[in-house]
Amino acid sequence: MMQFSRPIITLITDFGLEDPFVGVMKGVIYSINPEAAIVDITHGIASHDILEAALAVRSSYGFFPPGTIHVAVVDPGVGTSRRPLLLVTENHCFVGPDNGLFWPVYQSVSNPLALQLTEEEYFLRPVSHTFHGRDIFAPVAAWLSKGVDPRKMGKPVSTPTELNIPGIRKIGSSKLIGTVLRVDKFGNVITNLTAEDLPPTEGASTPYLIHIGSRRISQFRRAYAGATPGELFAIWGSSGRLEISVNQASAAILLGAHKGQEFDVEIKSLVQSTSSGIMEW
Amino acid sequence: MMQFSRPIITLITDFGLEDPFVGVMKGVIYSINPEAAIVDITHGIASHDILEAALAVRSSYGFFPPGTIHVAVVDPGVGTSRRPLLLVTENHCFVGPDNGLFWPVYQSVSNPLALQLTEEEYFLRPVSHTFHGRDIFAPVAAWLSKGVDPRKMGKPVSTPTELNIPGIRKIGSSKLIGTVLRVDKFGNVITNLTAEDLPPTEGASTPYLIHIGSRRISQFRRAYAGATPGELFAIWGSSGRLEISVNQASAAILLGAHKGQEFDVEIKSLVQSTSSGIMEW
Amino acid sequence: MMQFSRPIITLITDFGLEDPFVGVMKGVIYSINPEAAIVDITHGIASHDILEAALAVRSSYGFFPPGTIHVAVVDPGVGTSRRPLLLVTENHCFVGPDNGLFWPVYQSVSNPLALQLTEEEYFLRPVSHTFHGRDIFAPVAAWLSKGVDPRKMGKPVSTPTELNIPGIRKIGSSKLIGTVLRVDKFGNVITNLTAEDLPPTEGASTPYLIHIGSRRISQFRRAYAGATPGELFAIWGSSGRLEISVNQASAAILLGAHKGQEFDVEIKSLVQSTSSGIMEW
Repeated sequence: MMQFSRPIITLITDFGLEDPFVGVMKGVIYSINPEAAIVDITHGIASHDILEAALAVRSSYGFFPPGTIHVAVVDPGVGTSRRPLLLVTENHCFVGPDNGLFWPVYQSVSNPLALQLTEEEYFLRPVSHTFHGRDIFAPVAAWLSKGVDPRKMGKPVSTPTELNIPGIRKIGSSKLIGTVLRVDKFGNVITNLTAEDLPPTEGASTPYLIHIGSRRISQFRRAYAGATPGELFAIWGSSGRLEISVNQASAAILLGAHKGQEFDVEIKSLVQSTSSGIMEW
Repeated sequence: MMQFSRPIITLITDFGLEDPFVGVMKGVIYSINPEAAIVDITHGIASHDILEAALAVRSSYGFFPPGTIHVAVVDPGVGTSRRPLLLVTENHCFVGPDNGLFWPVYQSVSNPLALQLTEEEYFLRPVSHTFHGRDIFAPVAAWLSKGVDPRKMGKPVSTPTELNIPGIRKIGSSKLIGTVLRVDKFGNVITNLTAEDLPPTEGASTPYLIHIGSRRISQFRRAYAGATPGELFAIWGSSGRLEISVNQASAAILLGAHKGQEFDVEIKSLVQSTSSGIMEW
Repeated sequence: MMQFSRPIITLITDFGLEDPFVGVMKGVIYSINPEAAIVDITHGIASHDILEAALAVRSSYGFFPPGTIHVAVVDPGVGTSRRPLLLVTENHCFVGPDNGLFWPVYQSVSNPLALQLTEEEYFLRPVSHTFHGRDIFAPVAAWLSKGVDPRKMGKPVSTPTELNIPGIRKIGSSKLIGTVLRVDKFGNVITNLTAEDLPPTEGASTPYLIHIGSRRISQFRRAYAGATPGELFAIWGSSGRLEISVNQASAAILLGAHKGQEFDVEIKSLVQSTSSGIMEW
């Protein structure tokens, strides 16, 4: 791990912002390294929802500079035998409980190093049985930001705990079953489908038909404001996932859609575009 | 634009704090300038409410030091032809979509320079059609904080997009119609009236009578705790606007008041104070 | 007060995060000292709840490094004769209204110095009657972080305003009456009992029986995940207080428990453990 002029530590938790939990973690970090820059990604993860936090880690870390340390604490097993984990990749470090939180990152990088945190000199002692975000993960992140070699902090483990991420099922050659991953603040329904899962949408006609709940969606839009009022449409969202949206209204409310809900996409036979260049949807 | 030792970037959005949107913008900023200090003004703007965000920008920016860069992103038209804007005033820069967000600032300063952001080398590429906060406004703010000359980033435009701000109507010589701009966390009802709109309130008797909904308010107080329990009163709020308040309770709930609601103020004939000095209301 | 390389200022308020109040305080601080690190402990204190804020100050400040300046603003009496206070302890400074906010800290330290803030050169002028967080407490904290001697800022007062903190009542030799202090984000019911109030829980059988509402709780757990699903149990929380919890569910909802609710603890005759070492509950 290299040293950078101003180390950045990001935080993702299910602690909310009402209790002093997050502030206390920052106090622990600054007590060790007052020069760190601490960034809250979100503390609004649904309580105990490891999948939601794992996806937030996966979709955000790449926007931070090399050397950033990412702390994620959604930790229903705190105080039990679940391991505290440090995952080191080429450019980033990840610190938190080994319960699947870092599985999507682990799967997406080459040559990750996974360590079980064992060296108590980098912990806040005595370590409680109820708040390892304060007692283990915050201080370890702070020491990493001071340049401590990760290998001094623990022992290698073969692989982190896996996470069950909703996959995409193919039904024959023309149908996919996807899952709603989450609903964002605007009511956009974010799915697990990416552009790799679907044939390209360039062309004169829309080649997909989405069934979700009792609704059928055949319109694709490139921008939210490209839609007519009240119209449900599909759009490639900013994290590369297929979203179902309504312009300036909540698609989730209109659809009654919720996290974990399945939907299907029917792929129509493609009509080749006769025009050159990229068509607007 | 001068360079300062530790540049400050403020953020106002309607993104909320549950999704990773704001954290990702900070990652983009720190990737360009890890020395910046980033300040969240609010991410709780009602979705797509340009007026609310414009007022938040207008009422907060003046408390920041010269050289501060203010990013505001309430952007229902993202991905359409609406322009990305950089507004440069004597002491501050403002970055965001050109949809009226910066109109109140533009109107209140002398010699502002408005630029349409065109130089993609200061953007995160490829620029998406759904998240210019991440792809345009955050990186432009970061480059500004590194000292890049605003004029290198775009081309001057004659005037930013105007915003329709609720005005004050005069009915004859003794009546004003005002509008509720917002309700704050304490239930104070914040109006568009300022001290300039009303005759001075020094004196032995209160010279105004406010009608809002079915209530009449004739008491002015200088401090919230100056009122008797349950009493509705008017007060000059900390941003210079007339507020309707109740001590330690919500005036908005008591009145059923809401954003955009009109009310009127009857100006009684002034009785000159015979005392010297400033009277308490 | 010593000077540190990067001074830290913490904030606890009841301002929420929707309004620009907190952002404006940060603007005032950075205008005076752009090198400060500002940490939000919480802005989610219930409006006007001095006790809740006082407990948040008391439970969080010790995790911050020496030299940290703690600002707390829950201020129903703003603009009245209540004093603005600066409390200086061996390692920390505390700034806010003198309404009981700092009483728990004052009681817990040796040789505190309490000052009434009087020197207006360290204020933002003109001082409003409605927002001393912006006009007095933020700028005073910023000047302290620049190394200004606290004694230059005001005059000593004999003692800060006391706060009525719910105490523990003993009924005979085997019963205690405690009070619920708050409910955290996970629904854990946090009480005013600490380990000092109860005999030690090492041993073969649980020596307490808790009655809260219509429920009896006899199980103690060391970790949240040690409980069976749906089971109500007691646990020593991360701030040293007795909590009533349910694994991955809300004990507060299950119990209908709320802030200020009383409950009792029956202490059974202790059965001495015959084993050596510490038993798990």
